[in-house]
Amino acid sequence: MSPQAKRSSVIHTSIPDAGSAIDRNIPDFPIAQLSDEEKYFRTYKAPPYLEEIEDEVRKFIDYHATHTGKKVALITSGGTTVPLENNTVRFIDNFSAGTRGATSAEYFLENGYAVIFLYREFSLLPYSRHYSHTTNCFLDYMTESNNKIEINPDFADEMLMILRKYKKAKDSNSLLVIPFTTVNQYLYTLRSIAILLQKVGSKALFFLAAAVSDFFLPQSRMPQHKIQSQSTGKLIIDLEQVPKFLRRLVDNWAPSGMIVSFKLETDSSILIDKAKTALDRYQHQLVIGNLLQTRKKEVVIVASNDQSHWIKLTDEEVKENMEIESLIVPEVAEHHEKWISNHIKKEQESH
Amino acid sequence: MSPQAKRSSVIHTSIPDAGSAIDRNIPDFPIAQLSDEEKYFRTYKAPPYLEEIEDEVRKFIDYHATHTGKKVALITSGGTTVPLENNTVRFIDNFSAGTRGATSAEYFLENGYAVIFLYREFSLLPYSRHYSHTTNCFLDYMTESNNKIEINPDFADEMLMILRKYKKAKDSNSLLVIPFTTVNQYLYTLRSIAILLQKVGSKALFFLAAAVSDFFLPQSRMPQHKIQSQSTGKLIIDLEQVPKFLRRLVDNWAPSGMIVSFKLETDSSILIDKAKTALDRYQHQLVIGNLLQTRKKEVVIVASNDQSHWIKLTDEEVKENMEIESLIVPEVAEHHEKWISNHIKKEQESH
Repeated sequence: MSPQAKRSSVIHTSIPDAGSAIDRNIPDFPIAQLSDEEKYFRTYKAPPYLEEIEDEVRKFIDYHATHTGKKVALITSGGTTVPLENNTVRFIDNFSAGTRGATSAEYFLENGYAVIFLYREFSLLPYSRHYSHTTNCFLDYMTESNNKIEINPDFADEMLMILRKYKKAKDSNSLLVIPFTTVNQYLYTLRSIAILLQKVGSKALFFLAAAVSDFFLPQSRMPQHKIQSQSTGKLIIDLEQVPKFLRRLVDNWAPSGMIVSFKLETDSSILIDKAKTALDRYQHQLVIGNLLQTRKKEVVIVASNDQSHWIKLTDEEVKENMEIESLIVPEVAEHHEKWISNHIKKEQESH
Repeated sequence: MSPQAKRSSVIHTSIPDAGSAIDRNIPDFPIAQLSDEEKYFRTYKAPPYLEEIEDEVRKFIDYHATHTGKKVALITSGGTTVPLENNTVRFIDNFSAGTRGATSAEYFLENGYAVIFLYREFSLLPYSRHYSHTTNCFLDYMTESNNKIEINPDFADEMLMILRKYKKAKDSNSLLVIPFTTVNQYLYTLRSIAILLQKVGSKALFFLAAAVSDFFLPQSRMPQHKIQSQSTGKLIIDLEQVPKFLRRLVDNWAPSGMIVSFKLETDSSILIDKAKTALDRYQHQLVIGNLLQTRKKEVVIVASNDQSHWIKLTDEEVKENMEIESLIVPEVAEHHEKWISNHIKKEQESH
């Protein structure tokens, strides 16, 4: 049976086990091939605003290619959704506030990168993240004095420091933010940006921190209106796997860029193995492995040469609110420097 | 077959139709009975912080019962999630930014109510909603002048007006906000607050604007760790219906409070019928019907006496940014006034 034939089969091959919600009784599924890519983008429509975004991104990349010579990091952040209905009331979401992506973006900017921040709408943004998702209400930072609104003096100094960094990033045209919501919007936008980033060659860095859905509901099986619940005792959602586009990114969309992906697991015993398997399958450069429970204080950086290196915050560093991204980003940037010089060497050799 | 027996059946009764993602081949399912309630709360644990919340709510209600005599509105807002794993990476979510709830809360406060705002964490909050989910970054409202941070003068006047309303609500202890995330947290907290609200009798108003999941994944079928995707071609999620607790609210938890629920549909042809069916089934007082597509400019208020009344914004009102909640809330408050006087009459008659 060809992979194609397997994919198009939508009828269960077995009655799910009553003790488990997930039917795993299906053979290994191959990574996305060129044909899967073509099929996906032929079947699912591009978001209507895609060209507009491409224009913005093109200008941003051109500006840095021509004027600053900066390395450009594409950071993806937040979770993608999978709509279960055409007029979306219900969807499956992947947990991610976007902390990793938004925090890393700030450190990439501090490390001299221009940053394209492809993020889930309403997830955390660089700089504003310090205020937007706290339990404090926006207005708790404000106060009234002599009939004028002002920043509460308790917060003013810190906020000024953050405002300055934010304005610096904006004024130097070093930060471009692009939102997505669904997995389809994410995939289309990622592809477009990756292709545009070919312009800066090996100076492009992909830092794929978004939590991308593994499964989606094909359009053909999506009800037009809200799923009606009153006549059913239960709901069975029969999802298909999202093609693994990481390999397409490596081979076709961004063959010269350095690619860093993330592995989030909850079971520590399989973390490094899963990271190595991913590098093996997709042939990219780095996997940053982390556990849901400890992701803010330790990660493991696994490289394609099979070396892995743990980065851990000490208890004291945690107490001082040090952010682990302040250690991750310089290490990734170092890998990227090597990647760039190897590319230059190779190019010189081939001439 | 008893309802109980039907509910506990977890094996499909049919192979789902290949053309549809949803298996509807299951007979009508009855609304939650007392036994369903007991079973649910026996099976699922209360959130660990529940007692803390109960203390806060009790103080809030006591304060208004003793000192202000205000009517108390419980407003629920935002969507509930259904975790698909015990260490939650993936969950099913219901679409709702919380606009209706957060906006209505402001108008209930303006109409003299004390408001308990039970909302999905990170969804919109009254007052801060004007700034928190815009495409503007928090920091875009700020500027630096003479080494000090201040509010950008373009926004300062409007923000001052909103800050004043917010401070007034806070200083008069008229607004209590309580977050939830999962449907289980929502149900437990709703029950606790409803029971505490018995203290103010018919002066309690339930304004149930939250988008509550109809389906959930029973704990017993939830995997401990993240669902592994690499070996499966597809994912089948087999969900059960969340018991319809609205009837329990009417009969047991809050027999004297007035209850307003919402019906969000995408198909206009069934909206009023669905609203009437809900009133019939749950025996509460008002349903506010709205369509996903037009919910910001028209709603229909359907009362238990079978009367329905459309509220629509004119094009001009829409242009002037009038909020439909400014019309909905006074109308609901009027219904509530009648409800209270009827209760007083009944009490007098029975003495």
